[in-house]
Amino acid sequence: MSAKNKFIAVIGNSKASAHEINLAEEIGRQIAKHGAILVCGGLDGIMEAACRGAVSEGGLTVGILPGTNRNEANAFVKIPIVTGIGWARNMIVVKSAQAVIAVGGAYGTLTEIGYALKSGIPVIGIDTWKLATKKAVCESIIRVDNAIDAVNTAIEMISD
Amino acid sequence: MSAKNKFIAVIGNSKASAHEINLAEEIGRQIAKHGAILVCGGLDGIMEAACRGAVSEGGLTVGILPGTNRNEANAFVKIPIVTGIGWARNMIVVKSAQAVIAVGGAYGTLTEIGYALKSGIPVIGIDTWKLATKKAVCESIIRVDNAIDAVNTAIEMISD
Amino acid sequence: MSAKNKFIAVIGNSKASAHEINLAEEIGRQIAKHGAILVCGGLDGIMEAACRGAVSEGGLTVGILPGTNRNEANAFVKIPIVTGIGWARNMIVVKSAQAVIAVGGAYGTLTEIGYALKSGIPVIGIDTWKLATKKAVCESIIRVDNAIDAVNTAIEMISD
Amino acid sequence: MSAKNKFIAVIGNSKASAHEINLAEEIGRQIAKHGAILVCGGLDGIMEAACRGAVSEGGLTVGILPGTNRNEANAFVKIPIVTGIGWARNMIVVKSAQAVIAVGGAYGTLTEIGYALKSGIPVIGIDTWKLATKKAVCESIIRVDNAIDAVNTAIEMISD
Repeated sequence: MSAKNKFIAVIGNSKASAHEINLAEEIGRQIAKHGAILVCGGLDGIMEAACRGAVSEGGLTVGILPGTNRNEANAFVKIPIVTGIGWARNMIVVKSAQAVIAVGGAYGTLTEIGYALKSGIPVIGIDTWKLATKKAVCESIIRVDNAIDAVNTAIEMISD
Repeated sequence: MSAKNKFIAVIGNSKASAHEINLAEEIGRQIAKHGAILVCGGLDGIMEAACRGAVSEGGLTVGILPGTNRNEANAFVKIPIVTGIGWARNMIVVKSAQAVIAVGGAYGTLTEIGYALKSGIPVIGIDTWKLATKKAVCESIIRVDNAIDAVNTAIEMISD
Repeated sequence: MSAKNKFIAVIGNSKASAHEINLAEEIGRQIAKHGAILVCGGLDGIMEAACRGAVSEGGLTVGILPGTNRNEANAFVKIPIVTGIGWARNMIVVKSAQAVIAVGGAYGTLTEIGYALKSGIPVIGIDTWKLATKKAVCESIIRVDNAIDAVNTAIEMISD
Repeated sequence: MSAKNKFIAVIGNSKASAHEINLAEEIGRQIAKHGAILVCGGLDGIMEAACRGAVSEGGLTVGILPGTNRNEANAFVKIPIVTGIGWARNMIVVKSAQAVIAVGGAYGTLTEIGYALKSGIPVIGIDTWKLATKKAVCESIIRVDNAIDAVNTAIEMISD
């Protein structure tokens, strides 16, 4: 693997429904099948499911942790990054990726979507936040409804 | 002044309409009239207008800057905080306040709203982001349409 | 007060000897007497003593906190900045000042001295770290042995 | 590779002597030969040399970048982490490792040594900073004079 690999972040809540967990795991598998590297926040829920899926296909997983202890990473994180900067690490999760896939999500996911869009990093969303300004619905999030479309879109959006 | 003072953040874009600028300036004035301390990102647009308003009423203004140079602060920032951590400083802007008033706003403002709501800090919004999850409109932002209501609401939300 | 005021950081350990505490308190008083604003890490020990001294002379004190709770600030912090980024906040403490006074200190103080010198911010030291490279003693820290000299030197080093 | 691998940081300046560059490259090779993963700041000089060495032996390299552009990584970084938080990333470099090897170094390296020692992460040094407090020389840095001893010591210091 190398920096030439594509880096895709999967973001979402540490508490997630069974449906979202299945989605995230399949997204992780697809990312690995494409030879891309999975970046996430390294904790539970969506993050763990995506890592588990990627590892099941032999993929590499990077977990960018908020705390100061590498043991807070879920069991499927291969490369734990110990930031110690709390939720400010959300910015690093998305900036370290070239495309972001959001599955569901709570307020932390909202900050990550904001940072990605601000940075010009494509965001693909499944059942995630809908945003509108005063004037209009914000169409910046690319909506898909399944894991294969999510990852195919992410891969296509990353220019070689 | 003291830590007993109430701290209110005003967030919004560095590019703003004349209407939004007027709103932000009046919000700054009202914050100062209530004896509260204004926290913001320290740059232009909404941030500068709010600081100008607060200073015109003798208020104190804190500008939490993204860069490494105190001179990037607008002319109405009394206390420049030089973070050097880029847009990760958005988290610090809201965490340093006890209530947040959002005026309009782009993606940076979206990250600040996300951090505030995640941290349980009340967000009062004028013409700002509308949020919805898959299931429902997110009612967490308290909507107002003028500066006086915005600041009165913020003051009331801060428990003594 | 204004951004035209001089900003001086006082750094040192949260555990300090009675002698160091007295020094820090006198440094705080001197900073306030010069009309400068005190910046510190906002916690106990040297930080609290310096704030107490500054407040006793009517000075303004900024405490840049590592955690997520404004109540972790010592009782003499007037402006608590709630960073939530842990010890990465050490960089912000020194970058928000125009001169730094180090009293004693442990490893956290060492990181602050490193950031200040890297940023070209003058460091005045009393009984603090001595540094040497492979080749030579590092003379970058200006050594003084009392509070009045420390603050006078800091004030002189800050160009108007 | 996995989180079970040992993670070793190599820290040092982006400007380094030919001797230091050779040392860093050999350190990188030794890290890879031990099956450990190299963590560094991702830029030039010592960082690039260590990465080049590790890659020459088929090792994995993580570069924790200060800026917002993954292209600032040196050519031998396999996993670029894009922090966007400037020199506050120094804390993340050392916290993401279980042992730190310092080669030479300037003020940035000093901040990294401070963070590592504060965090209880062993620091092995070659021709790097010498530290002393008011009272005594600080013996916390383990001194070695060659690459093989540096990496062997790092490996031994990391408990399984």
